[in-house]
Amino acid sequence: MYDWSAVDVDRLRNDRREAIADLMKRQGLSHLLLTGFDHIRYATDYRTQIISEAFDWFAAVIDLDGRAEIFAPWVDRTQADPLAELPWISAIHPMPSWAPMVGHPETWTAGLAGALGAAKKVGIELIDPAVLRRLESALPTAEFVPIGCELYDVRVRKTPEEIRLLEDASIVNSRGAEAGFKAAEAGMTDHDVLAAIMASLQESGPEFLSHSLCNHGRGDGGWFAEGTVLAEGDPYFFDIGLYGRHGYASDIARTGFVGGDTRAEIKSVYAKLLKAHEVAADAAKPGVRVSQIDDAVNEYLRSEGLPTTPYAIGHGVGLRACELPTIYRESMTDRDQVLVENSVIALEPETGLEVDGRFLLLKLEDNYVVEHDGVRRLSPAGYGLDG
Amino acid sequence: MYDWSAVDVDRLRNDRREAIADLMKRQGLSHLLLTGFDHIRYATDYRTQIISEAFDWFAAVIDLDGRAEIFAPWVDRTQADPLAELPWISAIHPMPSWAPMVGHPETWTAGLAGALGAAKKVGIELIDPAVLRRLESALPTAEFVPIGCELYDVRVRKTPEEIRLLEDASIVNSRGAEAGFKAAEAGMTDHDVLAAIMASLQESGPEFLSHSLCNHGRGDGGWFAEGTVLAEGDPYFFDIGLYGRHGYASDIARTGFVGGDTRAEIKSVYAKLLKAHEVAADAAKPGVRVSQIDDAVNEYLRSEGLPTTPYAIGHGVGLRACELPTIYRESMTDRDQVLVENSVIALEPETGLEVDGRFLLLKLEDNYVVEHDGVRRLSPAGYGLDG
Repeated sequence: MYDWSAVDVDRLRNDRREAIADLMKRQGLSHLLLTGFDHIRYATDYRTQIISEAFDWFAAVIDLDGRAEIFAPWVDRTQADPLAELPWISAIHPMPSWAPMVGHPETWTAGLAGALGAAKKVGIELIDPAVLRRLESALPTAEFVPIGCELYDVRVRKTPEEIRLLEDASIVNSRGAEAGFKAAEAGMTDHDVLAAIMASLQESGPEFLSHSLCNHGRGDGGWFAEGTVLAEGDPYFFDIGLYGRHGYASDIARTGFVGGDTRAEIKSVYAKLLKAHEVAADAAKPGVRVSQIDDAVNEYLRSEGLPTTPYAIGHGVGLRACELPTIYRESMTDRDQVLVENSVIALEPETGLEVDGRFLLLKLEDNYVVEHDGVRRLSPAGYGLDG
Repeated sequence: MYDWSAVDVDRLRNDRREAIADLMKRQGLSHLLLTGFDHIRYATDYRTQIISEAFDWFAAVIDLDGRAEIFAPWVDRTQADPLAELPWISAIHPMPSWAPMVGHPETWTAGLAGALGAAKKVGIELIDPAVLRRLESALPTAEFVPIGCELYDVRVRKTPEEIRLLEDASIVNSRGAEAGFKAAEAGMTDHDVLAAIMASLQESGPEFLSHSLCNHGRGDGGWFAEGTVLAEGDPYFFDIGLYGRHGYASDIARTGFVGGDTRAEIKSVYAKLLKAHEVAADAAKPGVRVSQIDDAVNEYLRSEGLPTTPYAIGHGVGLRACELPTIYRESMTDRDQVLVENSVIALEPETGLEVDGRFLLLKLEDNYVVEHDGVRRLSPAGYGLDG
């Protein structure tokens, strides 16, 4: 087990609940109807991430006093005041277990309408439209207002407790990366490398493993391990993540090289990728537009005659591994956001080269906290080779 | 690596695409707008499950001819006819990478509206209401009809290829369970047991690990591992799952016992849980209402003076680990569905007992294919003790 930091949990919860109350007041909301595992956690600290499919198994209704009712699959009758340590949760109500919400719109609507009887203006995010339309009919005086983007905006600046928890997750994730490097040998498959990483991450005592991807010799850009067998000198990359204690995430990637006999032209391009990664970190400061970071990295890669990164160069990290801001070119996002102090971000350049007619991808990703004069890296895993 | 079955992939794809075309005709739809990883896979065979958060990163628009346009985070320009083996996919369009859909409703709407220009009646499932409302404004002659439940209904009966793939996944999951039993020793934590399971599952070459839960001595019903240390004789249960080749899932649970010195009263209740599991499997036949299965199990547990299972006793299994039907009491579902031949289901009774003032939970879960005269178990893992 990793020795997870003891943080001031009361302060963590209070800061988040105040941020939600403030959002509701600013938006004139009487209630919030949340379904995202991360939004429910942020607003109530109720933990719902049981399976990768649980994105439509839970809901929370929150009123202006911060009182919350939870809807969950793992009880078969309403439990009043169920959790002493979360006294603002007044009830957990049963919903159809182990089923997509879209499979039971009537049952869901009946449950949610019960908690929204007094609602005037309800902030909503992702929801089954079959349920939303029924709620609109059942509660004709209530207005339902999409609030998904605003829910992420209040989370961009992290508190000291959140930064500590995000750093813990990135340290654990870095140990997973080191376990992957150590395990990788000629003759094993890409799946075996991920197995070593996942065992390391799980032994550390996280809440959930979000993703474990590996590209080995796939020039098509595919990220899925395919059972290919590693050979001496081969590069490969993995992109791995977890939700650590209290649900805070880490999302990193490393390029590894099997054995010591990697060809010079691969090493040369990898050295430039390391430089591109530095360019990204140097560009990330409070006050810059996120597109400037994306531009800086891709302009550098272009100046070296290398392929640019064919997706966003970075993103926020918090209770989701991927939050706002989306660090990408302006044309690909709704807003070219300004980077702010105390946000936590991932930066993840990719490039590649052709070797013997085969295109090889190389990638790096780290997590950083944005401080007043630049970023501080949270993920200490080494970079392999001479990095 | 597990030796995954070679199935007739063309037939798998064609059967599913025909089922979708038939649904669209029956519902009078001109287009489908899909966001679920499982629905996109079923309708197009495009694989999107990259991270547990990817539930709002992708979309597919499908027309009456079965032509599909994909919206994805891992490209930065539209790729026409991108995949030779999936010729019905005419384009992959870029969307904001590594970001919740709710963070970029304008960009998403602009992209989707481009593919829905000719739409008259669009079947929809889970979607950001901010995007849906913008689409309704942008396409005033198009009608948007929730179709989430119907999308699951067409998937209830599995084809021979689907059953073969589901059986493969359950064999791999069973090996994971055996790895967990083998690893469990006094002095290790619940996380360590899950680490052994996850390494086994990942080495087999699956597509994704859906969940790995462990209850050790948590009478509150919690399913999350907490770093508790196993002692001789302790019972524990794990509930584990994966998406195997082509994305087909398995979802099983086993109760294990540390060492050989488990107390007689625990063994006695466990023997009754094994019996309850048999009661469930015996009750599951084509033509029965799902509530009859739930009732049979809980009536048996009640007759033995044991706690009943506080959630649905089972569910369908397919491209999601948890699909329809929801095998639960009638009052907790929209429909008391009739079990049909060639469906694949999970059955998962739970009970418990108090020992020395501590409440202990015991649980089992297997996957079955429903045949004409009853169910056939797909998950061969042993049950431990005398099971």
